[in-house]
Amino acid sequence: MHEQFRQYLAQRTTISEKELDYILTHFELKHTTKNEILLSANKTCKHLYFIQKGCLRIFCIQDDGQEWTRFVAFENEFATSMPSFINQEPSMAYIQTIEPSELLAVTYNDFYKLIDRFPEWERFYRVLLEHAYVKSVKRIEEFITMDAWQMYNTTLRNCPKLSQRLSNKQYASYLGISQETLSRLKSRR
Amino acid sequence: MHEQFRQYLAQRTTISEKELDYILTHFELKHTTKNEILLSANKTCKHLYFIQKGCLRIFCIQDDGQEWTRFVAFENEFATSMPSFINQEPSMAYIQTIEPSELLAVTYNDFYKLIDRFPEWERFYRVLLEHAYVKSVKRIEEFITMDAWQMYNTTLRNCPKLSQRLSNKQYASYLGISQETLSRLKSRR
Repeated sequence: MHEQFRQYLAQRTTISEKELDYILTHFELKHTTKNEILLSANKTCKHLYFIQKGCLRIFCIQDDGQEWTRFVAFENEFATSMPSFINQEPSMAYIQTIEPSELLAVTYNDFYKLIDRFPEWERFYRVLLEHAYVKSVKRIEEFITMDAWQMYNTTLRNCPKLSQRLSNKQYASYLGISQETLSRLKSRR
Repeated sequence: MHEQFRQYLAQRTTISEKELDYILTHFELKHTTKNEILLSANKTCKHLYFIQKGCLRIFCIQDDGQEWTRFVAFENEFATSMPSFINQEPSMAYIQTIEPSELLAVTYNDFYKLIDRFPEWERFYRVLLEHAYVKSVKRIEEFITMDAWQMYNTTLRNCPKLSQRLSNKQYASYLGISQETLSRLKSRR
């Protein structure tokens, strides 16, 4: 049941098979339905998820009730509400499945126990963090410097899965625009 | 000339004094004037800076010419245009000094050479990355979920240095509002 994750790690780390076996015992398989809320705002996030199948979105709810999708992760990616997970403090964001998903969940305590024990695992996490950080900063920089049309085209080019697998409402909330504007951009293209 | 940085590292890592000596030889002292541009957009960022004195801001220029300040770092903090530094690709952001500053600069090549060589240095960087990532995500989540008045008060409470050391124009660009709106918020308080 962890085979996909094992392959993913074997391709990216030099962790021995024996250590990998041990690491994998800390990841628990979880099947979800579509649109399942895994974490609500103001709750502390206890898990980091690896996605074997399906996708997760991290979103915030604005004062006026509008949703803003900060991040979407697909197969072979990790996702959680990072500030809440790292600092073990209440989350500003929600975590929700977009499709029925197959996840591998590791708890905060187990995750950091593995980091203290295996330098290779720490290195793997460091590189993961770099990618996540870069993605997050690029996302905000695009959000700030681009208008809706540029954002729409850049997103379509860099991550076509988003428009294919998110609902119109979710996709609009990822682009930070209304569903009406999204429809206009689609017909303009 | 590296004494402040040495103390900073000694308090946060278990790197031996000998290793620390070696690490420090890779950080070059740089004195800057006020408002000096250390990196322009579309250039690849070659340096990571530790601030011994002064402050740096990372900002983007929007389509309409407006500046948006993504991040400000003060004494005893690191700063760079992270996506550009990590991936060695053109930066979307500018790096500018806000005050005359005393910086310690390490090159990309030296920084990653040190990471490969010293596990303790990698751990130090991993924790630094976690903080930077959390800060970046919180910043965007606050930006999305808060109105100008909430943002103004939260920023004043969490980082009073920003209003004290940035110009009105820079501070407004950090809050994502016009200088006129900032003046209104100040008098409302």
